[in-house]
Amino acid sequence: MADQTAFTKGHGTENDFVLVPDLEGAHELSAEQVAWLADRRAGIGGDGVIRVVPTAAAGDSSVREQAAEARWFMDYRNADGSLAEMCGNGTRVFAAYLRREGLETADEFAIATRAGVKVVRFEGTDLIAVNLGPWRLAQPTIARDEGFDALVHLDGHEPLSALSLDLGNPHTVVALPESVDLDSLDLHRIPIVNPVPAHGTNVELVRPLGAGHIRLRVHERGVGETRSCGTGAAAAALATRFWAGGQGDVWTVDVPGGRLRVRALPGQEVELAGPAVLVADGVTPLV
Amino acid sequence: MADQTAFTKGHGTENDFVLVPDLEGAHELSAEQVAWLADRRAGIGGDGVIRVVPTAAAGDSSVREQAAEARWFMDYRNADGSLAEMCGNGTRVFAAYLRREGLETADEFAIATRAGVKVVRFEGTDLIAVNLGPWRLAQPTIARDEGFDALVHLDGHEPLSALSLDLGNPHTVVALPESVDLDSLDLHRIPIVNPVPAHGTNVELVRPLGAGHIRLRVHERGVGETRSCGTGAAAAALATRFWAGGQGDVWTVDVPGGRLRVRALPGQEVELAGPAVLVADGVTPLV
Repeated sequence: MADQTAFTKGHGTENDFVLVPDLEGAHELSAEQVAWLADRRAGIGGDGVIRVVPTAAAGDSSVREQAAEARWFMDYRNADGSLAEMCGNGTRVFAAYLRREGLETADEFAIATRAGVKVVRFEGTDLIAVNLGPWRLAQPTIARDEGFDALVHLDGHEPLSALSLDLGNPHTVVALPESVDLDSLDLHRIPIVNPVPAHGTNVELVRPLGAGHIRLRVHERGVGETRSCGTGAAAAALATRFWAGGQGDVWTVDVPGGRLRVRALPGQEVELAGPAVLVADGVTPLV
Repeated sequence: MADQTAFTKGHGTENDFVLVPDLEGAHELSAEQVAWLADRRAGIGGDGVIRVVPTAAAGDSSVREQAAEARWFMDYRNADGSLAEMCGNGTRVFAAYLRREGLETADEFAIATRAGVKVVRFEGTDLIAVNLGPWRLAQPTIARDEGFDALVHLDGHEPLSALSLDLGNPHTVVALPESVDLDSLDLHRIPIVNPVPAHGTNVELVRPLGAGHIRLRVHERGVGETRSCGTGAAAAALATRFWAGGQGDVWTVDVPGGRLRVRALPGQEVELAGPAVLVADGVTPLV
């Protein structure tokens, strides 16, 4: 059992991650190692990989500068091994891990990310909230009574009106008309968005369920349909709020993997809250 | 860390399994527990779950009767929690686990399964072979120069001629014409087989590469496309051998998840050989 690497598997509304503690900040992960850890059949399996590193030991100087505010750095990687700025559900699972391990003990603390310091807060034992930071409409001058700035084409349906938002990453949110059944939509293919976004976009398909309550499916850029997307849930709630004339600051958002809460915060920021579950701890002979 | 259940994750050509040692045979797994263990996002993740049980402690009397020949029972379950008879790649991963743990030490030993005793054999350190037992053509009287007994319909293609085999489970093997590109086939939808098999069928799409060498993709009944299917690899080799006039007893079979070897054995039996990898060991709070 020599040269084994410890790991923990966890998920937030079934957006799942392999966490690798590196408490001395001594073991960078190569892109190949990350891809193997995230491989669902040849490796452990996850939507992403999170190395748990002291902020002061981060390789990136702009991250190290966060050390005065945040003791631990969420070194987040996409499943293909590439670097990622941030991941909303990932921050919540990361926070659950820090608390369980006793690396943080307060109900509210800051974590370092490539997108800057993020504050997480525990509400009871089951809910972890994170301030995702600022958001904006992709076209800030859009008229509220117009409400849409894009069309989304899905197989077998008329073009659907959509609204584009920027939460650090791009989202295009479709309010489905009554005639379209959310559950039977075929999301195997990439939805075609018009005008074509320069760097692609995540697409959220939303069904309003009542005041402050929506249900959605999401197609993540470069990934395909997923069980949950934190910024996607936030974008969907914010778009629906925009269409509702800016009314309602707290939204219940049902995604295929569970239930999230989205709050519009003062200062054009947005908070994501939901459960985080640590499902397994183990070791693997990482090479 | 009370009430933790130990597990090992392993795969054979990326057909992957969660192994749960129950060395006293005291802990049956419920269908819900199996489904959770196999869940790739909310649980650990695998194509199936294998409980490691002393044959003498098996719940099923027809399995306990195998105890004189086989010390350990591969209690195999599908990812949905249902019971399964057998799994070719699963037996090889199960054998690798027994050897690593010192539960078996010989290069050849028998294991108990719901489909009877199976003999596994280690060739060097990297190859594990298992005798899958008898196979037959679904229509034994089919003429060799006819060669086909079914049509398979795939989106956007002319109907494709196919041959049906029974390896304990049903298979329908298509030899792709040169005009059809194996890699670009869309297998998201269930291939339509005509005549419609009473209990469904696994479908193998085969590209011959040379003497004794084929490459395939497989759509598994009730699952969808997978990275590998042991009996599917065997069925594909046996069908190609039939079309070749019964020539060739050893076949190299490339599946998306790796390389397998299939041997036609005397007495109308077939052997599957390939690698098995144990990738992680851990504990999980199974409820």
